[in-house]
Amino acid sequence: MLRVAIIGGSGYTGLELLRILAGHPKVRVIAVTSRAYKDTPVSEVPCFRGFYEGLKFTEPADFKGIKADIAFSALPHSVSQEAVPGLLKAFGRVIDLSADFRLKDEAAYRTWYGEHKSPWLLKEAVYGLPELNREKIKKARLVANPGCYPTGAILALAPLLKRGLVRPDSIIIDSKSGVSGAGRKAALETSFVEVAGGFKAYKVGCHRHTPEIEQGLSSLTGGADGVKIVFTPHLIPISRGILTTAYAELKRHVSTDSLIGLYNEFYEGERFVRMLPEGRFPDVGNVRRSNYCDIGIYLDAGRKRVIAISAIDNLVKGASGTAVQNMNIMAGFKETLSLDGPPVAI
Amino acid sequence: MLRVAIIGGSGYTGLELLRILAGHPKVRVIAVTSRAYKDTPVSEVPCFRGFYEGLKFTEPADFKGIKADIAFSALPHSVSQEAVPGLLKAFGRVIDLSADFRLKDEAAYRTWYGEHKSPWLLKEAVYGLPELNREKIKKARLVANPGCYPTGAILALAPLLKRGLVRPDSIIIDSKSGVSGAGRKAALETSFVEVAGGFKAYKVGCHRHTPEIEQGLSSLTGGADGVKIVFTPHLIPISRGILTTAYAELKRHVSTDSLIGLYNEFYEGERFVRMLPEGRFPDVGNVRRSNYCDIGIYLDAGRKRVIAISAIDNLVKGASGTAVQNMNIMAGFKETLSLDGPPVAI
Amino acid sequence: MLRVAIIGGSGYTGLELLRILAGHPKVRVIAVTSRAYKDTPVSEVPCFRGFYEGLKFTEPADFKGIKADIAFSALPHSVSQEAVPGLLKAFGRVIDLSADFRLKDEAAYRTWYGEHKSPWLLKEAVYGLPELNREKIKKARLVANPGCYPTGAILALAPLLKRGLVRPDSIIIDSKSGVSGAGRKAALETSFVEVAGGFKAYKVGCHRHTPEIEQGLSSLTGGADGVKIVFTPHLIPISRGILTTAYAELKRHVSTDSLIGLYNEFYEGERFVRMLPEGRFPDVGNVRRSNYCDIGIYLDAGRKRVIAISAIDNLVKGASGTAVQNMNIMAGFKETLSLDGPPVAI
Amino acid sequence: MLRVAIIGGSGYTGLELLRILAGHPKVRVIAVTSRAYKDTPVSEVPCFRGFYEGLKFTEPADFKGIKADIAFSALPHSVSQEAVPGLLKAFGRVIDLSADFRLKDEAAYRTWYGEHKSPWLLKEAVYGLPELNREKIKKARLVANPGCYPTGAILALAPLLKRGLVRPDSIIIDSKSGVSGAGRKAALETSFVEVAGGFKAYKVGCHRHTPEIEQGLSSLTGGADGVKIVFTPHLIPISRGILTTAYAELKRHVSTDSLIGLYNEFYEGERFVRMLPEGRFPDVGNVRRSNYCDIGIYLDAGRKRVIAISAIDNLVKGASGTAVQNMNIMAGFKETLSLDGPPVAI
Repeated sequence: MLRVAIIGGSGYTGLELLRILAGHPKVRVIAVTSRAYKDTPVSEVPCFRGFYEGLKFTEPADFKGIKADIAFSALPHSVSQEAVPGLLKAFGRVIDLSADFRLKDEAAYRTWYGEHKSPWLLKEAVYGLPELNREKIKKARLVANPGCYPTGAILALAPLLKRGLVRPDSIIIDSKSGVSGAGRKAALETSFVEVAGGFKAYKVGCHRHTPEIEQGLSSLTGGADGVKIVFTPHLIPISRGILTTAYAELKRHVSTDSLIGLYNEFYEGERFVRMLPEGRFPDVGNVRRSNYCDIGIYLDAGRKRVIAISAIDNLVKGASGTAVQNMNIMAGFKETLSLDGPPVAI
Repeated sequence: MLRVAIIGGSGYTGLELLRILAGHPKVRVIAVTSRAYKDTPVSEVPCFRGFYEGLKFTEPADFKGIKADIAFSALPHSVSQEAVPGLLKAFGRVIDLSADFRLKDEAAYRTWYGEHKSPWLLKEAVYGLPELNREKIKKARLVANPGCYPTGAILALAPLLKRGLVRPDSIIIDSKSGVSGAGRKAALETSFVEVAGGFKAYKVGCHRHTPEIEQGLSSLTGGADGVKIVFTPHLIPISRGILTTAYAELKRHVSTDSLIGLYNEFYEGERFVRMLPEGRFPDVGNVRRSNYCDIGIYLDAGRKRVIAISAIDNLVKGASGTAVQNMNIMAGFKETLSLDGPPVAI
Repeated sequence: MLRVAIIGGSGYTGLELLRILAGHPKVRVIAVTSRAYKDTPVSEVPCFRGFYEGLKFTEPADFKGIKADIAFSALPHSVSQEAVPGLLKAFGRVIDLSADFRLKDEAAYRTWYGEHKSPWLLKEAVYGLPELNREKIKKARLVANPGCYPTGAILALAPLLKRGLVRPDSIIIDSKSGVSGAGRKAALETSFVEVAGGFKAYKVGCHRHTPEIEQGLSSLTGGADGVKIVFTPHLIPISRGILTTAYAELKRHVSTDSLIGLYNEFYEGERFVRMLPEGRFPDVGNVRRSNYCDIGIYLDAGRKRVIAISAIDNLVKGASGTAVQNMNIMAGFKETLSLDGPPVAI
Repeated sequence: MLRVAIIGGSGYTGLELLRILAGHPKVRVIAVTSRAYKDTPVSEVPCFRGFYEGLKFTEPADFKGIKADIAFSALPHSVSQEAVPGLLKAFGRVIDLSADFRLKDEAAYRTWYGEHKSPWLLKEAVYGLPELNREKIKKARLVANPGCYPTGAILALAPLLKRGLVRPDSIIIDSKSGVSGAGRKAALETSFVEVAGGFKAYKVGCHRHTPEIEQGLSSLTGGADGVKIVFTPHLIPISRGILTTAYAELKRHVSTDSLIGLYNEFYEGERFVRMLPEGRFPDVGNVRRSNYCDIGIYLDAGRKRVIAISAIDNLVKGASGTAVQNMNIMAGFKETLSLDGPPVAI
């Protein structure tokens, strides 16, 4: 059994890790920390009644006595970067779900997030999108688990950029996310009454996932050309799910058939990417509580535009599901362990 | 592997059976029928993309060539009673999710539903609430899977009636159900716009689950006294979940402690019933997409009333989950197979 | 023009007062206070863009220079009782939307809320339910605007108690409220993700509206007998609306017809109470954003029970709508001014 | 009093007309037709209890005895075109809420909708977007009330195209609509359970509002250049509201200030268009149940893109509200009558 520690277990990504790992046949969660829930049995979280008997939330700093084989850090960004060096020392391998180790460029981190406290780890950290980086993840000590918007956007556009089919300066990404993406702290903006029945764009032109998406897409173009995107996130009054509608200008004429063929080839063997046939487009409802990313493609031949639409569950494929997928890869397990159930469509 | 046939696979309970059985280690679904989806691969139901490869929906009547060990009938009531005799003949064992074989009394069936076409099976059919009828279910040929409201109501009140603690004519059951309880046919009353943001009582004093609840509760009193209830169902603008708030008058003084103790004792060893400690009450969110029934108890000593509140997922513990639990019992499997994951609280 | 001051204008009841009064032909809001929004123009509240030009939120304490004819206090309970004496002095007449002046019995207030700081006003304050207390409201200096649950419960049951038809110790009130009832402060329990898709009972047996409902119902029985209720509030994942399902035991036999006739007679001429015909029951959707209270009645002759179901919008008839209705009465205006638009059913 | 007839009164736009006109001081609805509700009093529609006493729904064809000054046709497209000639004859002036008279080009209508049965009226019909066509609407016999998506899209982009600031072939319109946009017929795709918690794009590249948006935008460019758009509609799990996120490439450099200034100037005096200041973006919640269109602008100077975001209530500004605005204009009333209440933000 792989012994796992979860640092920061009471946020949505931490709780989702607990949910996914509860059914993992080769894992034992031996520690879970939370300042808020300190000393509370995990089984007192109402949905976990009857699960994780004997396991209590502990102080985040308190992992000295713990003998884990791997740690997940589900701490907020800027906090996580302070904890990760200690976690690496204590456990050897860390999957960090925060934004702290995703950007390779320290200056970019500083611009978007502020001063980095463990910059020496940025180079070593492996960007943990298994569909693109599987081989590096296998041996990584530190995996930077991708952000939710970047996961949806990069998977939607990767084949187009890899094959050089679209102009890298033409990309517009119009994304829509459920409310759990904002985290689990009380705030008027995410209260039920303020959100229900509404719909809005937010952080227009200034969302912190912009440089992460640009870095991810640029890495696919052979480095020749930096990808610059227009990115507009919106808030959907649902708990989970991200739909990404991405627009790009084609460099040359292609048919819908060959476009979909290209995607099918690019994602061949990828269990968690499901290409839809022509004329079908994804619904976040159809990937809910699953690790799947559904993708549909539309070609506007007249306007020479391709529309690539992807749907993920932001807490699973956009966070804790990919984190467990990375863990499976790192541990040499079957990659789909505990992740391959069907979505819960309703 | 147990070979399973699902008759009526495109309604919510049929699809939920497919979802639950997709992860069952000892089951193979070898046939699934649906008039609406006839000849469509199951993997074209969007959420099942990548699952059930090779399996197609077939005509309901078309089960002659099928060699299944057990069949689920997820047909609507009054239709199911016509199919079940044939299913018993073909497969030997049937779990019927409709209301057709739940009432023991043919006259009661006639009053509430209309003429019964296979009344000779009413006596043989076993009411499939495992927490009360496990031994009979083991050997049953025909299991009448309980209704969603009755499951929540009977589990909430069973210990009180079994121990003779409450007046059987004092029971008021105020239930609230998500919209999937109405089934999967298009109707203005269950359309998004008509339901969202609303809340109402419906079929006040005349819901067909009334006699089923009364039969279930009466069976616990030793037959001495028929239980007569006041039952008010309400519609919650959510997809899944039933909360049942039941009120009963105590015959004699008891303490909260001893009441909760009584419940704990009654449900000892029942994996799917989770008693909450004093002062905690269930939320349908905490049993969502799970087979659990959470129960909380409040004692109003002054008014000599007990309030018993239960929460279930109407499609799981209230339908397809209990059906699979029954199947596990009938097949001699571990009862919790494919059913013991944690709820998806958000 | 009646000059109105709103004290505490940034909570849901304060904002709803602003919404209702924006269209009032005989009112001018000359002051609105809010600690949180201090110095912000009302027109910067996004929905009020284009309204209330020139009006700014001011410090709550800052009403010395204000020459208003009447003040609404939309402050939280326990805060309001400190402000009201000053408001009375400054403006002469006050409608208090908090719970602070609703209970006549200071000891009851102490038990449920804590020490009262202006107890000498309890006797003078008029309980502001216009359908029961119109004459007293006309001349009141201080109106205690009813709570949301009490409004729905009292209107549903008043005719039964007034006519002595039901046993006063038999009443069970099972209420369901939208989330705005919890007020407009950030809290994890009312965040979108925690609430959406769930449904639960809360404060079972201990909700502070219990004594207010009992006082209101008792006042109808001629004082002979104190009414004691069982009251269970539930949280609906919608923003607005309360459905109250009340159960009571009949003292003698009556027909459904005569029951509904009794209600029609009791509420004759009441514009804001809409009795539904036999077999119809209210939906909170059908009173949304209106001052109406819809009531439907069911008689269970066999069990000698009557079920009275009412629906209100908790922020309108359950708070700010009734407050404006009271203001209209106090000012000698037509009672329905600015309140008689049709509900917004979807 | 203006005597008004509503043809097709039981769909969402017909019911919304009834809601808005219930409070109109200069209008009397003297007839309302509905095949489904024939002979039913309007006051039996639950939300209208207490309103429109004496008015019954009648057969659609049955308007011979009616003496109305103006008719609204809220019939579905292709049905409306058969009724409108008769309505014009009977009443003289018609506001048609269907798509039937919006496209000027009969061939385009044929391509997108099918054969037109009253094509001779296409030329005469005035496209009823008051902010662009007020003068023509004043004298129009037949007003083609704009579609919901086109209203949001055209208002968001009009100033840019009118001033020739953006490349007409660069426009991408990513729109999101609430479910009421799909109309009020029972359908599985719009049922609560199928929609709740989901989010998807639909009719990608083939939505019938595409040519209407292109026609509306092209009319602003001086006819020099036909505007060709990429248009992607999405379904939001809310009842009302459309958010339109439109992207366009600037022809030359402008500042954010001058862009917003341009919009303010363009919409000066328009009561129902509310420009937001820099850094603020609209939320459909803030225009709910109102006739307002909120617009926010973002300039991506580096990418030379402008993002224009608009929010409307699809049933009000996107349908029945604009229809009443048109009626006010045609009748010489104050344009805002019955339409100028504040939005209901929650």
